[in-house]
Amino acid sequence: MKATVFLEPGKMAVKEIEKPEIKQENEAIIRVVRASVCGSDLWWYRGISTKEPGTAAGHEAIGIVEEVGKDVTNVKPGDFVIVPFTHGCGHCEACLAGFDGDCLSDTSGSTGYQAEYLRYKGADWGLVKIPGQPEDYSEDMLKSFVTLADVMATGYHAAVSAEVKEGDTVVVIGDGAVGLCGVISAKLLGASKIIAMSRHEDRQKLALEFGATDIIASRGEEAIKEVMELTNAGADAVLECVGTQQSVETAVKVGRPGAVVGRVGVPHVDELDTNELFYRNIGLRGGIAAVTTHDRAELLEAVLTEKIHPGKVFTKQFPLDQVQEAYEAMDKREAIKSLLVM
Amino acid sequence: MKATVFLEPGKMAVKEIEKPEIKQENEAIIRVVRASVCGSDLWWYRGISTKEPGTAAGHEAIGIVEEVGKDVTNVKPGDFVIVPFTHGCGHCEACLAGFDGDCLSDTSGSTGYQAEYLRYKGADWGLVKIPGQPEDYSEDMLKSFVTLADVMATGYHAAVSAEVKEGDTVVVIGDGAVGLCGVISAKLLGASKIIAMSRHEDRQKLALEFGATDIIASRGEEAIKEVMELTNAGADAVLECVGTQQSVETAVKVGRPGAVVGRVGVPHVDELDTNELFYRNIGLRGGIAAVTTHDRAELLEAVLTEKIHPGKVFTKQFPLDQVQEAYEAMDKREAIKSLLVM
Repeated sequence: MKATVFLEPGKMAVKEIEKPEIKQENEAIIRVVRASVCGSDLWWYRGISTKEPGTAAGHEAIGIVEEVGKDVTNVKPGDFVIVPFTHGCGHCEACLAGFDGDCLSDTSGSTGYQAEYLRYKGADWGLVKIPGQPEDYSEDMLKSFVTLADVMATGYHAAVSAEVKEGDTVVVIGDGAVGLCGVISAKLLGASKIIAMSRHEDRQKLALEFGATDIIASRGEEAIKEVMELTNAGADAVLECVGTQQSVETAVKVGRPGAVVGRVGVPHVDELDTNELFYRNIGLRGGIAAVTTHDRAELLEAVLTEKIHPGKVFTKQFPLDQVQEAYEAMDKREAIKSLLVM
Repeated sequence: MKATVFLEPGKMAVKEIEKPEIKQENEAIIRVVRASVCGSDLWWYRGISTKEPGTAAGHEAIGIVEEVGKDVTNVKPGDFVIVPFTHGCGHCEACLAGFDGDCLSDTSGSTGYQAEYLRYKGADWGLVKIPGQPEDYSEDMLKSFVTLADVMATGYHAAVSAEVKEGDTVVVIGDGAVGLCGVISAKLLGASKIIAMSRHEDRQKLALEFGATDIIASRGEEAIKEVMELTNAGADAVLECVGTQQSVETAVKVGRPGAVVGRVGVPHVDELDTNELFYRNIGLRGGIAAVTTHDRAELLEAVLTEKIHPGKVFTKQFPLDQVQEAYEAMDKREAIKSLLVM
């Protein structure tokens, strides 16, 4: 089968490799229908973080269950599923508490999702069933399903972690796919004022379409000043969808006393001065998204009923063979997010 | 009038000074009935933090309103009140959000509470009225009222910040008056298992009386191991009532994925590695207590109906003239908390 392989920073390839097989009874083999490139893939694509050359890539997909291990009874061959980047077992303390992204069971064993087939560990609980078959849905709807494997659930995790509620003023830091899904989520949870921090015109436009009421294009101290001008004393909730030291520090400063910062940006932060958190009662929450939990609780239904259209973050699409172009488009910011069509 | 003055680390004195007068229209003069020494007073009493020699001391009291400024209409002379250490105005964004400990109005102007009289800034909203007069209550009840000026509200703030709910397993770090009030609060909010970290027999005893189900006497790595043995994968909520680097780090480690640490220990922490927070979805919340909000929402009623008895933290009492002994008793851990009777 064909699969995406990382060669070196800036270089991806599609190679013919062996089709994955079930090795443990809680695994499933999925025929991939759509996959995608994630902003977090760019960390190693750009050489900022390390990844072993020759290893498979991808952690966002939808597909058809082809085969399941003996312990998998909740899905069966032929089912159409979201394949989350997380692998919740559904019965450990983390999963039971609704944090399947921190599943305490053994979650290793899955293969790269940017491929014709993938092996998924924890298939009995982690996979999210979509009613019907791919051909029952529009291309737009399929794109939205793909976001439920990661970015939409991650943006939602930021909003839930920040405890966004009806009528809130929310600041969203980050205009990547996750930040834009954060805007969707803030609106879904009832925020009445959504301030999106974005410097790119295409993303500003999409943020406004998703429900942002204000755009701030500056950063750092200037951005903080602008938030304070747009609010009385800071936002009720802050969604941090970048992960750099500057963005986390900005997030803490734009909240009003008692606000909660929901962080989902993979942290590239050294250490944080937490005194400001204390003296202003700012909460810091978030982390790895609980994809399966969020999809089942609200997001799949919101996509199916067309309450939300997160698939719009895919502004370019490529056949699997053109995976290099798919990465390049995101790296050069020519695409907000790249879809891979199998 | 007599008032407590800080001379130098380890030395307090009662001096005759001028009775405070109203300087601004949102102030009140209170005749103090009971006051107390706070664990946070020990930071400067011990010379660990600095305090200007010759300045007045104390920030916990109950008393009778003697005089009010023109803007004060919610209380009148003769009213019996809790005098919080906080000074919420009741109408800024912080107070409206329930965080009056972070009031954004000018909160300066109050005088030391360990005195016969005090001036309180923000009297129209910040003071909490107690029904009747001091003579209507038992000595034990008066003691409990004094804790509502700070420690009980602060322990409760830890529990609310940690989002303690019915059936939770809660770890309380710190066995000072605030930690013990944290135990009371966890129980009040429905926790079913309360693990108190305490190394002192008198405090362990009181923790158990207040609702603790388990005691851990060790610290650091050993304490973390013991919590893990007592729980499946860590606590649902953690109350951090100390403020040192070690206690904050321990707090983060004893929570299960998704747990929230409610911090109220005045931080003596340099910087915190927040990656562990992220990868385990641990929340960090808390700060200065919202005393007026918490007292009005639940605590005063809980004391009046004898659901809680936080006054038991006062294990010694002294007349104002013996304020030096009151501080010494706490410094030497001969008292959990010292009451001052005017």
